[in-house]
Amino acid sequence: MNEKIDKINYLRPGERLDDLQRNGYKIIQNPEKFCFGMDAVLLSHFAEIKKGSHVLDLGTGTGILPILLSAKTEAGFFEALEIQEESCDMAKRSIAYNNLQEKIHITAGNIAEASSIYGKHSFDAIVTNPPYMIDKHGLKNPALPKAIARHEILCTLEDVVRESANILKPKKSLFMVHRPFRLAEIFKQMMKYRLEPKRMRFVHPYIDKEPNMVLIEAVLDGNPMIKIEPPIIVYKNPNEYTDQLLDIYGF
Amino acid sequence: MNEKIDKINYLRPGERLDDLQRNGYKIIQNPEKFCFGMDAVLLSHFAEIKKGSHVLDLGTGTGILPILLSAKTEAGFFEALEIQEESCDMAKRSIAYNNLQEKIHITAGNIAEASSIYGKHSFDAIVTNPPYMIDKHGLKNPALPKAIARHEILCTLEDVVRESANILKPKKSLFMVHRPFRLAEIFKQMMKYRLEPKRMRFVHPYIDKEPNMVLIEAVLDGNPMIKIEPPIIVYKNPNEYTDQLLDIYGF
Repeated sequence: MNEKIDKINYLRPGERLDDLQRNGYKIIQNPEKFCFGMDAVLLSHFAEIKKGSHVLDLGTGTGILPILLSAKTEAGFFEALEIQEESCDMAKRSIAYNNLQEKIHITAGNIAEASSIYGKHSFDAIVTNPPYMIDKHGLKNPALPKAIARHEILCTLEDVVRESANILKPKKSLFMVHRPFRLAEIFKQMMKYRLEPKRMRFVHPYIDKEPNMVLIEAVLDGNPMIKIEPPIIVYKNPNEYTDQLLDIYGF
Repeated sequence: MNEKIDKINYLRPGERLDDLQRNGYKIIQNPEKFCFGMDAVLLSHFAEIKKGSHVLDLGTGTGILPILLSAKTEAGFFEALEIQEESCDMAKRSIAYNNLQEKIHITAGNIAEASSIYGKHSFDAIVTNPPYMIDKHGLKNPALPKAIARHEILCTLEDVVRESANILKPKKSLFMVHRPFRLAEIFKQMMKYRLEPKRMRFVHPYIDKEPNMVLIEAVLDGNPMIKIEPPIIVYKNPNEYTDQLLDIYGF
């Protein structure tokens, strides 16, 4: 396909087509609304998805996680849930563009109701890059797509954890990226719903700075013992990524 | 004092006098029994002890934490609890050697009963370097001093956390060093007893290795928001400490 046909067939006004540098896959995004970040890429690297497994993405946005994981893993099938109709529509067009209709299925709906949509104990893995921020104060317009993606306006951390526990098969894993400042609450919610934190990795912008992301794997009915992995350091100098990060990105 | 007099007055057979490189303080240790490790030094660096505060050390061993903290902080007074009589005796002799009798008081007793010894909500800070290991299997002799110091034979993590919560004044801090693999359980116990994890730092032997220690500050009735600090990296090459570690050690 050439770029001109792509744009006619797949893009709406304000949207652009970004190359994912994996399998030639591309993704449709609208920079006015929401673009995926490093968190999604690092989560796709952190998640250990087994061959043939059925994977659910809670809050898929424009579909970045299932598209990346289709390229990186041998998962059998992806379901992906997203509450914002416009994001669902972009995700579906990206999936069609990449010819992944047989592999990824998008559903419009709320994470808080996910287990009634997908059924109990039906998935081998869940990935999620949920809204990070509790604080709704100071939001000028909580109905804006960016606000819904970033703040707990339509679903809470507890919704994400409870529904994950309901949907996972026993001994299977939830892979989550979140903000470190909420770690105690994340652990508390996970253990409340029998999701045992088993593996964790912090992402620091620089070696001597506090982490700004945390990657967590929790296992339904897992035994209590957690492995903390070496930190991911993003930059060695301003605008210069570490070798470790370039390696994760696949460059 | 010269070394010969020191040895006559203070040391028993098998013991040695180690220089702490702080205020000229020394500590009596018996390498056959138990010597303090880097964990105690890093905890003394991590703990933020305010001027004039009353500090309790739960499981003081040979008294390393109150002696180091006497040198590093302006705390008002230290109480220190230790169940092993022989360690108590060594701690008392070290305190006398350093002329710290007015500043540090050692009590023989079990951490599990600490709040009945010291009274409720009576301290401004608690430091603890408790036994790390749950597993008592494979211990040839659980009565040995090293086994008691390292394994949860005479007190459990829950004992340490519960008693800390009973003894601390509201909004005051527990500073703990522990093993990262028990992090989820540590958080669970802390939150069970209203000790909110507020600050945490991992210690990695090398930048690309898993951490082998974790430093945690928890506040009684604190608000839920945790700060993860930059990691401490111990070695840059085998047998060569990082500048960061040398700085912490005060060299």
